[in-house]
Amino acid sequence: MYDAGSAAAAGVRGCGPLQPSQSDRTGGLRQQVFVHVRATGQSSRADIARGLGISAGSVSALTSDLIQSGFLEEVEDTPREAGRGRPPVALRVVRGTRCVIGIKLADARHSAVLVDLSGQTVADVTLPTAGARKPVAALVEEVGTLVDRLLTEAGQDIACVAGLGLGISGIVEHDTGQVPWSPLIAGRDTALAALLADRLGVPVRIDNDANVLTLAELWFGSGRARSDFAVVTVEHGVGMGLVLDNRLFRGSRGMGMELGHTKVALDGALCRCGQRGCLEAYLADYALAREAATALDRPARDAGNAAVIDALFAEAKAGNAAAATIFRRAGRYLALGLANVVQLFDPALIILAGERMRYDYLYSDAVLREMQALTLAEGRTTCEIATHVWGDLVWAQGAAALALADATDAVLGA
Amino acid sequence: MYDAGSAAAAGVRGCGPLQPSQSDRTGGLRQQVFVHVRATGQSSRADIARGLGISAGSVSALTSDLIQSGFLEEVEDTPREAGRGRPPVALRVVRGTRCVIGIKLADARHSAVLVDLSGQTVADVTLPTAGARKPVAALVEEVGTLVDRLLTEAGQDIACVAGLGLGISGIVEHDTGQVPWSPLIAGRDTALAALLADRLGVPVRIDNDANVLTLAELWFGSGRARSDFAVVTVEHGVGMGLVLDNRLFRGSRGMGMELGHTKVALDGALCRCGQRGCLEAYLADYALAREAATALDRPARDAGNAAVIDALFAEAKAGNAAAATIFRRAGRYLALGLANVVQLFDPALIILAGERMRYDYLYSDAVLREMQALTLAEGRTTCEIATHVWGDLVWAQGAAALALADATDAVLGA
Repeated sequence: MYDAGSAAAAGVRGCGPLQPSQSDRTGGLRQQVFVHVRATGQSSRADIARGLGISAGSVSALTSDLIQSGFLEEVEDTPREAGRGRPPVALRVVRGTRCVIGIKLADARHSAVLVDLSGQTVADVTLPTAGARKPVAALVEEVGTLVDRLLTEAGQDIACVAGLGLGISGIVEHDTGQVPWSPLIAGRDTALAALLADRLGVPVRIDNDANVLTLAELWFGSGRARSDFAVVTVEHGVGMGLVLDNRLFRGSRGMGMELGHTKVALDGALCRCGQRGCLEAYLADYALAREAATALDRPARDAGNAAVIDALFAEAKAGNAAAATIFRRAGRYLALGLANVVQLFDPALIILAGERMRYDYLYSDAVLREMQALTLAEGRTTCEIATHVWGDLVWAQGAAALALADATDAVLGA
Repeated sequence: MYDAGSAAAAGVRGCGPLQPSQSDRTGGLRQQVFVHVRATGQSSRADIARGLGISAGSVSALTSDLIQSGFLEEVEDTPREAGRGRPPVALRVVRGTRCVIGIKLADARHSAVLVDLSGQTVADVTLPTAGARKPVAALVEEVGTLVDRLLTEAGQDIACVAGLGLGISGIVEHDTGQVPWSPLIAGRDTALAALLADRLGVPVRIDNDANVLTLAELWFGSGRARSDFAVVTVEHGVGMGLVLDNRLFRGSRGMGMELGHTKVALDGALCRCGQRGCLEAYLADYALAREAATALDRPARDAGNAAVIDALFAEAKAGNAAAATIFRRAGRYLALGLANVVQLFDPALIILAGERMRYDYLYSDAVLREMQALTLAEGRTTCEIATHVWGDLVWAQGAAALALADATDAVLGA
């Protein structure tokens, strides 16, 4: 995926790119120690051992590795009690010297963040873009522009970028960096990660956009307190991410979790993917715009335009029965999709996320009641539902977490 | 769940019951060593280290534990080459002295097997039963009768039974041994495992019947060669089991995998569970019998009778269009359900199992083609589908594997 030769040709040096790991493991013990210290701000070795339930000896070896490879540094800890002897020592993430880039590609705009190893955002930029599918070469150029603007904004050079993570909707092979299909790319089975690595001269990891948002929840969001949870996203499509035992689950062969393309009707509504009866064909933006074209004479060509959905929602709120019936059915299908997630994965928490969560039809009490009614719960504690109305920058932060996990794995051998 | 006091009261002694572990882990390293030796028949320590990818030192410690606790014994290995020095030593499972019981409960008959620690079946029996829901006390008595007959058949005493595993359809809490709901039990949230342990004086582990069949595949079937696969069962209901990384996945909170109750239509066909649109309401025996009652004037009271389905299938084969249309739709819904499994879990293999696999509508080329058509595969290798027409005794063997895993975990501390 990443060609060291082309990186060298691009003049990478100093604190530059790290070799990416071929491993899919983002949950190794060193990684866990690093994430623990990052999450707590600073932490003593004893705190780490307690927090992760590992021995003092292991912590000592792991933190020594992390210090030597420039991820952690020792600082003087706040003394808890007066006394003699050595001043207490804590560990924290080394700041400022190395960064990773996180990018979310989308229909209407691309977003990028520059994040240091401690997870602090150094800079962010957004690039408006046309909504149609485009050749992968054009998309790679757009990412190049985005990265240039981001580095300019931050006053940084590409040489300080240890890696780039990118989230894109569609079917994405995280392991190989190939994109078999994406609604943003004209053509199939493109080598997106390799093309980006060649263009930028840094290691690139890509993943499905729902997975990068799930990583954002795990690294920066409410998922930090949970070892197991699901994320369901509703935007231009419907996505899902699942964390099991603090790790992202991608399906046995790395490409599961396609909730948006599970079938909720035989011979049902037509989906963007060309099949019928997919959940997202009842729920995603284009599905609502299509219904608006039928019942409200809205031009079908506006289907990719989020403003159309905003206007439709305003009409539904103002009492337009046709508009209201469109949202009502979308809400019922969301309830059905969530019930299926509960039935199969039995998560303790589902986080609903994505731009459409601004529309309360998607998380109204009626929807949650219907979800319960469609779930064989039999008196057990129901699954907790949380709603996060997050912007694209949070998705980009998740993509940065992907690069961060990869950079630490690469150096530390996972 | 298991009361040592009542076991003592029941006169248990000698090689009798083992304390069950509260742990859900059936995949610990000792367990893996034991399963490896059991699967290979006999195996040298070097073979074990190679097979499991662990160090010689670990293998030595683990096998020493297993020998001391009476699970493995040393035997002389077949010499590979002439030479001097110590004769080569292999390990095998100790035979005959300890057993576990595996039971599958079903509508029309219950099945039981007595299995020794090496996985060899010592005896099996089947008990015909009436198909209606019954009070849990009556079911416990039926299991008592079944166990008595099994031990008589084997010429054994309950004192040699290290544990009992039992599979039952419905929602089953493996951890607590509670059954919130089962189509076989009148009433909700019954303490089935505790009641059985009291009645029989041995530790009892229970699980959803699809999970025990999946264990049978993992321990005895084609799943032995795979670390990740799914099992989908079609009988009186539709069930699913999933193995990830050689271990049974039960959902984050232990009760996922309810494929039969995922919704495949909004406001769809009525299910036995009382909800609408469940996959099994289009596919299970009762769903087909219900359709036969509508289109072919079959009495609805025969819905629980497998002979009705057999007769209906014969008519479809003989050219009855109404009967054929019933099976055709069932096949299409199976295709839809399998496509959803692929979309979410991306398994390399799905094993179709259960009594209904005798009907070729369920695994005909047309069904597999439709499954592919409903899956967003994008040129990737398609999921392999295998069909196993297995009888109830295999399910019972899986239940025995549940007890076996538990017995080894209990002694070895997982």
